[in-house]
Amino acid sequence: SRSLNLAVIPGDGIGQEVVAEGLKVLSAVLPQDVKLETKEYDFGARRYHATGETLTDADADALKKHDAILLGAIGDPSVPSGVLERGFLLKLRFLFDHHVNLRPSKLLPGVATPLAGQPEIDFVVVREGTEGPYTGNGGTIRKGTEHEVATEVSVNTAFGVERVVRDAFARAQARPRKKLALIHKNNVLAFAGHLWTNIFNKVAEEFPEVTTEYMHVDAATIYLVTQPERFDVIVTDNLFGDIITDLAAAVSGGIGVAASGNINPSGDFPSMFEPVHGSAPDIAGQGKADPTATVLSVALLLRHLGYDAEAARIDEAVSADLAERTGQPARSTSEIGDALAVRVAG
Amino acid sequence: SRSLNLAVIPGDGIGQEVVAEGLKVLSAVLPQDVKLETKEYDFGARRYHATGETLTDADADALKKHDAILLGAIGDPSVPSGVLERGFLLKLRFLFDHHVNLRPSKLLPGVATPLAGQPEIDFVVVREGTEGPYTGNGGTIRKGTEHEVATEVSVNTAFGVERVVRDAFARAQARPRKKLALIHKNNVLAFAGHLWTNIFNKVAEEFPEVTTEYMHVDAATIYLVTQPERFDVIVTDNLFGDIITDLAAAVSGGIGVAASGNINPSGDFPSMFEPVHGSAPDIAGQGKADPTATVLSVALLLRHLGYDAEAARIDEAVSADLAERTGQPARSTSEIGDALAVRVAG
Ligand SMILES: CC(C)[C@H](C(=O)O)[C@@H](O)C(=O)O
Ligand SMILES: CC(C)[C@H](C(=O)O)[C@@H](O)C(=O)O
Repeated sequence: SRSLNLAVIPGDGIGQEVVAEGLKVLSAVLPQDVKLETKEYDFGARRYHATGETLTDADADALKKHDAILLGAIGDPSVPSGVLERGFLLKLRFLFDHHVNLRPSKLLPGVATPLAGQPEIDFVVVREGTEGPYTGNGGTIRKGTEHEVATEVSVNTAFGVERVVRDAFARAQARPRKKLALIHKNNVLAFAGHLWTNIFNKVAEEFPEVTTEYMHVDAATIYLVTQPERFDVIVTDNLFGDIITDLAAAVSGGIGVAASGNINPSGDFPSMFEPVHGSAPDIAGQGKADPTATVLSVALLLRHLGYDAEAARIDEAVSADLAERTGQPARSTSEIGDALAVRVAG
Repeated sequence: SRSLNLAVIPGDGIGQEVVAEGLKVLSAVLPQDVKLETKEYDFGARRYHATGETLTDADADALKKHDAILLGAIGDPSVPSGVLERGFLLKLRFLFDHHVNLRPSKLLPGVATPLAGQPEIDFVVVREGTEGPYTGNGGTIRKGTEHEVATEVSVNTAFGVERVVRDAFARAQARPRKKLALIHKNNVLAFAGHLWTNIFNKVAEEFPEVTTEYMHVDAATIYLVTQPERFDVIVTDNLFGDIITDLAAAVSGGIGVAASGNINPSGDFPSMFEPVHGSAPDIAGQGKADPTATVLSVALLLRHLGYDAEAARIDEAVSADLAERTGQPARSTSEIGDALAVRVAG
C-alpha cells in the first residue's frame, strides 16, 4: 500500500486555521489505500520568541525525511521584518533547492477581480527560486553614516537559469496554448538579461511547438492589467517573479485563492506548498480566513506527487464552491473546509 | 524680458509627431514676454545607424546649455535592445544627475481605466533615478558556457537615498493629504532595505505633518489595482519605480496620458521631460499618436521652471479635452494638439 508522509507547518496567524482545512480536504480526497502520515512542526514567531531559532540544522534534517511539506503562513509583527522571511522561508528554499517556484493564476467563475469586464485569466508563473537578488549577497559600509553604501548583488548562473527555463518550456509544451513568455529587464540589467535571454532562446530550439515572447517587467505589469488573457506560461527571475505573482494574484481573484509550490523537481529534497497570502494576524483565530488558497496548494502538492486525479478533484471542488458563493452569507474557515471535503469525497 | 531656452529631442517613431504638438501648446501657453528658443537635436536610431553614436561628450556639453529638455521617444526595433536605453536615456540621467524621476498618476474624468468601478487615483511617484540596479555595475564570467555567472549590483548610497527621500517628503508636505509611502523589499534586500528604511524614518522626523507608511513592492502592486486611492506620494528605488510607474500608468488611464520628469532639483544640469510611452514604431508617421502625455510633460517642465500658472492651464486644458472625448470620433495627433493649444490660449 502507498503512503504519503507529510510535514505540516501551520506557522503564524491564520496559518493554523487554514492548514487544518487543507488537511481535512487532503484526507477526504486521498484513495483508501494511501496511508497519510503527518507530522506537525512548530516554526515561526512562537518558536523564534521562545528559542531565538528560526530553522536549525536538526530541523532541516527532520523536514528532509518527508515526501512534501504543507505550510500555512509565517510572519508576525512582533518579529523584526526579514528575520523569519530570511531565517525560515528563504532559508528553506535555498537548503532544499526549491528552484521552481510555481504560481498558477486562474480567474475562476464567481470570483471577483479588480479588473473591469471579466477577462479570461489562466496562466502560470514559473519563478526562479534560488538565485537573483535573493541570495543575500551584498553588504554595507559606513553603516549609519552619511557615507553609507549598501549593495545587493543579483547572482545568475547558466546552471540555475537553464533548469528553470527548461521546466517552464516543458510546462508550456504540456498546455493547450503552448505559449511561454520570458519576463526580465534585459535592456537595463544587461549582464543577467543577456544570460536569461540567451538561454531562453537556446532552450526554445528544443521546443519548436512552443510560441515564445520576451517582455520587459515594466511592460508586463501593464499587460497583466490590460490583457491578462495573453499569458499562458511565464518564466522569470526570483525578484520579478515575486512582484508579478502578487499582481497576478490580485487580478485573478486575490491572494485568498492564490496557491504556490516551492518545487525541487529532482526530488532530492521535499517540495513545499503554501498559500501566497501571509499570516493575517488581524483576523487570526476568528475563523474568518478563507482556506481556499491552502486547499489549492494541497492540489499542487498532490499533482507534484503524481496524484493527478485527486488534484483535479480538488480543483473542481474549489471551482464549484466558488461559483456558488455569490449572494450567499459568509462562511467560517471550517465551514468552507467542510464543504470542500464533502465535494472531493462525493 | 524672460527667456526659455529649450533643447528638443524628438527621437524615434512617434516622438517627432508628439513633440511637435507639445511645442505647439507650449508656445500657446507661454506669456508674451517670455522669449522661447528651441534647438532640435537628432538623437536615437537614425543617428546611431548613421554614426554609431548615441550621445557624445560634445552632445552632452551642448545639451547642458539649455534650461530644460523635452524628449519625445527613443527606441527602434532596428537597434539591439539596450543600446539606446543605456547609451542615451540612462546615460543622460546619470550625466545630468537626474535623481528625481517624477511620475504623476491621476485618473482624469472621461479616461478609461482597466479597473472596475472608477477609483479616485491621484498620486505621484518619486523614483530615484541614478542608483540601485541601474548603475551598470556587475559582470559576466565564462560567458556563453554552461558555467556562466552573471551579476547585477544594486548600489545605494546614503547621499543618493537621502536627497530623493527628502524631495518626496517635501512634495508630500505640499499636497493636501500629506501622505508618503516608501516602497521597497526590505525583508529580502536587507542591506539596501535597511539604508532606505533608516533614512526614510530619519527624514520623517523633520516632517511631522506627513503620514508615512512602508510597503513591500509585491504588496504595492496589489494595492495599486485594489486600492489605488490610498496613495498620495510614493518614494522608491530606481527599479521598483520603473516597475510600479508602468503599472500606475496602466491603471490611471494608460501610457497615452502618462508624463514624466527626469529632474535635477539643484539646477546644475537641465532637467528632462518626456512621455512615459515609447516610440511606437507601428503607428509612427500616421498621425495616430496621442500627444497628451507629451503635453502633460510640458506642464511638468513649466512647473519645474516656475511657470506654475501656465502649467496649471495646460493641466486644465487636458482635463477638459479628455472629458469631452467620450463618444467623439478619434482625432489626429495634430488635431488634439490644436485643440489643446486653443484651450490654453483662450
Ligand atoms: C515573504 C517573502 C520572503 C516572500 C518572497 O519575497 O519570496 C514572499 O513575498 C513570497 O512571494 O513568497
Ligand atoms: C527605457 C528604459 C531604460 C527606461 C527605464 O527602465 O528607466 C523606461 O522603462 C522608463 O521607465 O523610463
